Amino acid sequence: MRSLPLGKVYTLLEPGPVVLLSTAFAGQRNVMAMSWHCMLEFEPPLIGCVVSDGNYSHGLLLQSGECVINLPGAALAEQVVGCGNTCGAGLDKFARFGLTPRPARCVGAPLIAECFASIECRVVDTTLLGKYCFFVLEAVHAWISSAAEPPQTIHHRGHGNFMVAGAQLHLPSKMK
Amino acid sequence: MRSLPLGKVYTLLEPGPVVLLSTAFAGQRNVMAMSWHCMLEFEPPLIGCVVSDGNYSHGLLLQSGECVINLPGAALAEQVVGCGNTCGAGLDKFARFGLTPRPARCVGAPLIAECFASIECRVVDTTLLGKYCFFVLEAVHAWISSAAEPPQTIHHRGHGNFMVAGAQLHLPSKMK
Repeated sequence: MRSLPLGKVYTLLEPGPVVLLSTAFAGQRNVMAMSWHCMLEFEPPLIGCVVSDGNYSHGLLLQSGECVINLPGAALAEQVVGCGNTCGAGLDKFARFGLTPRPARCVGAPLIAECFASIECRVVDTTLLGKYCFFVLEAVHAWISSAAEPPQTIHHRGHGNFMVAGAQLHLPSKMK
Repeated sequence: MRSLPLGKVYTLLEPGPVVLLSTAFAGQRNVMAMSWHCMLEFEPPLIGCVVSDGNYSHGLLLQSGECVINLPGAALAEQVVGCGNTCGAGLDKFARFGLTPRPARCVGAPLIAECFASIECRVVDTTLLGKYCFFVLEAVHAWISSAAEPPQTIHHRGHGNFMVAGAQLHLPSKMK
């Protein structure tokens, strides 16, 4: 893995992939599948996301104020669904689904070694937590695989139906 | 086009496609390309999105309190980039890019006839407008093409690089 400039974090999240959110607090850790996320600012990268208060990760995220957004390739689809279909209370999802935690640089939550990119984040705004369980995160460090080509991401369409990232298309554009 | 149950709106937006946001106010109308959006609730569907105050659409959205989120297929990629690279002040993007406005059912903003789905929305929360230009919208009606298969969506990776939606994958899942 190599460091990814923070100004490029949006290129990972803007296309809307399913991500694995890892959290840790007071000896507990968890992983959840998450699709409800949104860039809010390019740099420093701000990311909004919904982590329901019905999710075990909600408390870990709120209490630690930290998390890692990990990007799984399509080969991890079964593990993603496994994480999305189980509750972390009393279950170590890393062990259950064969995911390898690695120490992060800036936060206590672990990176997931099997993912091709990881974004270390801190919670910076909880204004809309009560209304929508909406956390605002700031990315403080990002990592990406040194492999030449990142794997295909997966994008959830509901009820276990995923779209796998397909062809690339480039059009001349002044957009960031 | 046929009505799409509001409870299915998330299946369109959760995968993260680029959308065309249409707005209208006091005889002005506009279209902008948007990728920074996020589901906040299933039903009634709540959608968070960033519309920068540097965008002409910002004022139209804020003043009318209404918009339509239109989903373009890959065949509209050039029009999407065109909308993203131009400013609506003094320019009718519908005319410029050959997009056809159609009356919506519940809001004053127009549907875009060339798009395969459209979600009529009202602004319901502007708490985070000052901080991040983040609007919370409620979907009040949704439309989808009657065609058997929707076209492939496009997903922006920055600087005119798009991922075109690829293969479908289904895994047994209890997730909504």
